[in-house]
Amino acid sequence: MTTPNPTASDIGPTDARQTDTTIRLGVLGCGHVGGALIRLVDAHAGVIAQRTGVQLVVTRVGVRDTSRDRDVPVAASVFTDDAASVVDSDDVDLVVELIGGTDPAQSLVVAALDAHKPVVTANKELIAHAGVELFDRAAASGVDFLFEASVGGGIPLIRPLRESVAGDRIRRVLGIVNGTTNYILTRMSESGAGFDEALAEAQALGYAEADPTADIEGFDAAAKAAIVASIAFGALVTLGDVHREGITDITIDDIDAARKLGYVVKLLAIADEQGDDVAVRVHPAMVPDDHPLAAVRESFNAVFIEGDAVGELMLYGRGAGGGPTASAVLGDIVDAARNLAGGHPGAAMGTLASRRIRPIGDVESQFYVPMEVIDRPGVLAAIAGVFGRHGVSIKLMQQHGLGDEAQLNLVTHPAAESDFTATLDELRGHEAVKSVGRMLRVIGDDT
Amino acid sequence: MTTPNPTASDIGPTDARQTDTTIRLGVLGCGHVGGALIRLVDAHAGVIAQRTGVQLVVTRVGVRDTSRDRDVPVAASVFTDDAASVVDSDDVDLVVELIGGTDPAQSLVVAALDAHKPVVTANKELIAHAGVELFDRAAASGVDFLFEASVGGGIPLIRPLRESVAGDRIRRVLGIVNGTTNYILTRMSESGAGFDEALAEAQALGYAEADPTADIEGFDAAAKAAIVASIAFGALVTLGDVHREGITDITIDDIDAARKLGYVVKLLAIADEQGDDVAVRVHPAMVPDDHPLAAVRESFNAVFIEGDAVGELMLYGRGAGGGPTASAVLGDIVDAARNLAGGHPGAAMGTLASRRIRPIGDVESQFYVPMEVIDRPGVLAAIAGVFGRHGVSIKLMQQHGLGDEAQLNLVTHPAAESDFTATLDELRGHEAVKSVGRMLRVIGDDT
Repeated sequence: MTTPNPTASDIGPTDARQTDTTIRLGVLGCGHVGGALIRLVDAHAGVIAQRTGVQLVVTRVGVRDTSRDRDVPVAASVFTDDAASVVDSDDVDLVVELIGGTDPAQSLVVAALDAHKPVVTANKELIAHAGVELFDRAAASGVDFLFEASVGGGIPLIRPLRESVAGDRIRRVLGIVNGTTNYILTRMSESGAGFDEALAEAQALGYAEADPTADIEGFDAAAKAAIVASIAFGALVTLGDVHREGITDITIDDIDAARKLGYVVKLLAIADEQGDDVAVRVHPAMVPDDHPLAAVRESFNAVFIEGDAVGELMLYGRGAGGGPTASAVLGDIVDAARNLAGGHPGAAMGTLASRRIRPIGDVESQFYVPMEVIDRPGVLAAIAGVFGRHGVSIKLMQQHGLGDEAQLNLVTHPAAESDFTATLDELRGHEAVKSVGRMLRVIGDDT
Repeated sequence: MTTPNPTASDIGPTDARQTDTTIRLGVLGCGHVGGALIRLVDAHAGVIAQRTGVQLVVTRVGVRDTSRDRDVPVAASVFTDDAASVVDSDDVDLVVELIGGTDPAQSLVVAALDAHKPVVTANKELIAHAGVELFDRAAASGVDFLFEASVGGGIPLIRPLRESVAGDRIRRVLGIVNGTTNYILTRMSESGAGFDEALAEAQALGYAEADPTADIEGFDAAAKAAIVASIAFGALVTLGDVHREGITDITIDDIDAARKLGYVVKLLAIADEQGDDVAVRVHPAMVPDDHPLAAVRESFNAVFIEGDAVGELMLYGRGAGGGPTASAVLGDIVDAARNLAGGHPGAAMGTLASRRIRPIGDVESQFYVPMEVIDRPGVLAAIAGVFGRHGVSIKLMQQHGLGDEAQLNLVTHPAAESDFTATLDELRGHEAVKSVGRMLRVIGDDT
C-alpha cells in the first residue's frame, strides 16, 4: 500500500485524487471470473478512485500455465505460476482467491490472512469446509475476509444478511442457489421435456458441466446452504450438517401433479430455526405458484428471507457467470481496500455459536404425496385414520378418477418428517392402497 | 459517545464487551417507524454490541405531544417536544430523523450534520428535494448521512446500488416503489375490481391514505425515482426532473388487453441512460408476464437493476410499514455508529454530476395502443404507413373483430415519445380510424 507524500503543491483546494491510496491486488486464478475481474478493475479503477479515494491495481496474477494467452489488460510480467509468491509478494496488499476447491486455496488464504493481508474469495467449498477457521484467523489479524460471490454470484446476499441479522431476527431462508438445476426444472415445467432431455439442453448451453453430479445431486446447493445458514443464524454450520437430495428422480408427472395443485417444483436450500435448533437441508420442494420464488426461471438464482422486523425479502439475480461473479468480488475488494487504506480493522464475522443441527427426521415440513387407492366407500376415512394415528394432520385431499384408476393426492399440515414417513410405511402395507408415489415437501407460510 | 476507561481488571483475556463504545441516539419522531425502531434497538442492542462492539441506547426522543402514551421501552423523561434540543443535546451522538417532509426536518438535519453528528433518515421528500446539499454538508463534516429506508422500506437497495455502481456500470433501473398502487393494480388484475373499488379496498386495509393523491398520482414514486436515479447514475436528479403519471385512468379494459398480449400493468419508476442523458419517469407500463417484476404482487415493492457486469438483479420486499422500515433504519444506524465509534469518517456519497435530464418527448420507449378501425382492405397498410412516416416501427399488430367492431392492437419497437404521439395525432384524424385508445409504454429488453 502506497500513500503519496503530500508536497507543498498539494496543499490547496480539496481534491480527493491527491490523497488516493493505491491498493495492489494479487489475484489467484485467471479463468472466467478472474479474467472478468481484471477487466472490470481496469475499466472502473478511475471511477472507484474518484468515489472512494482508493486506486486499485493488479500487480500479480497466479496461474497454472503462464504461457497461455489471456485476454486481460495486464503486462505479461504480472503472471506467475508460483501461487505462494503472489501471497508473499511485497507488491501485493490484498489477495483475491479465485482458484476454487480447498487445496491449495485453503493454505494460500491462511498464509495471506496470517500475513495481515485481507482476502476476497468466491470459493463456496472453502467457506463451507473451513469458514470458521478462516473467520477466526481474519479476526486475529484484524483484516477483512469477504466472500459475497460464494453464494448467488452477483446477487448482494451475504452483506444484506449480515446487516439484517445485526438488527433483526431471521426466521427462515429459502434459496434457489443452483442455476443448473433451476434451468432443468424450468425447462421440464415449461416445455414438458423430461429430466434427461432438459439436462442435455443445459449441457449444450453451457449451464451444466459434462459431469453434472455436483449440481443435480445438490452438492453445490448444500455448500451454499451451509454458508447461508451460518450467516443467517450466527451458527456453526458445515457441509456435513446439510441434509441433501438432488433432482434426478423428479419426473414430468411430479411437475404436472404439482401444477394441478397450484405449485411449481424447485430445488431449494432451506435454513430455519425450529425450536432451539437450526435445520438446514437441500431438496426439491413444491412452491406455491404465487410465491416470488416460483417466478425465478431459467438459470437465475434467488434467496427469500423471512425476518421478524423486515418481513419478507427476496434477492434475485445471476447466480453464476464471469461478469456477475466478478462484480460481487469487486464490491468486496472495494470494501476491504477502503478499510485497509483507512487503517480500519476488517469487518469481523462475530462468533459463530455451536448450535444443535436438527436431524432431518425431526424437521417439520408440509408434505405432498400421491397414492393409487381402491375406490370404495370408507377408503378415504381409513387412509385419513392412518395419518391421524401418526399425528399427521391432512390439509388437502383430492381424488381423481374412479374404480381401478382412483388416485388420491394429499397435502399435510406441518409434521415431523419421521411421522410422515412412518405414515407412508403403514400405507404401503394397507389393503386399500395400491401404491404410494413420490413424496415432495411443500413450502407453506411457516414451514 | 462514551468509551469506558480501561482499568487494571480489564486487562485480561480478550472480551469484546469490555471495549464497547456507547453510541447515544436522538430520535426525531415516534410514530409507526419511530416506535418500531425504539423497540428494535431495545430488543437487539445486546446482539449488536456482541457483534460490533457498539452499544446503542436511545437517550432523547423528540415528539409533538409528550403527554401521549407510547408503547416504547424508554423512560418518560427521554421525551421532549423541543426537536432542536434533541439535535443539540450533549447526550446525543447520532440523530435519527423520522419526522418526514422537509420542514422542520431539513433544518434539523442540517444542524445535526453541522454539529458533526451522523444522521440516519427514512425521509424520501427530504432526499429528493435537498439531497445534494445534505450530502455536501455530511462530507464537509466527515460524518455519515444514510437513507436506506427512504426507498423500498426494508429492502436493501441504496447500499447495493452504491456498491454496484462502484464496480459496474448501471444501464437501467425499473422499480415498483409504491405499495398502494401495486396493491390496487394487483386487485384490478386478479379480482377484476375497478379502480375505485380497488382503491376503497386498499383504504379499508390501511394500504392507502384517506387522501390517496400522493400515491395514486405517482408523487411518492417520483421522489423515490429521483433518489434511485441519483445513486444509480451518480447524477444530480431532483423531484422536478421526474416525468410523472399516476394510475387513476387505468381501466379493467387496459388490464385485460395487456393480459391478452402477455403483459401485466404496473406503475413503474424508470431511470436509464439514453445517449449521454439520464431519463427518469414514473408511469403505468406493461411488463411481460414472465418478467420477475410481473410476480411482484399486492403491496410489495421491488427494484430491478440492469448492469454491464452484474447482469440482472432484483431486490424485493416490504416497501413500507413500521417493522421493515425500522429494520433498514437500524442497519444504517449500526453502520454509522461503527464509523463514529471507530473514529472513521462517514461514507461520502461522491460527487453527483450535473447531467442532462432527457425531456419525456425525447425518451425512447416501446408503446402499446388500441384503436377502433374501419374493417376494409388496405386499412392496415394505411395505418402502418402513418407509423412509418413518423419513423415509428411496428413490432406487433393484432386485429380483433370484424366490420364496425374491428379493433387493432399495436406494439411498437423503441421510438421517441414525441414521434409516437405525433403518429397518434395523425391517426386521430385518419378517415379509417374511428377512435384511438389509451396508450401504455411497454417494457422490452432494452427500453
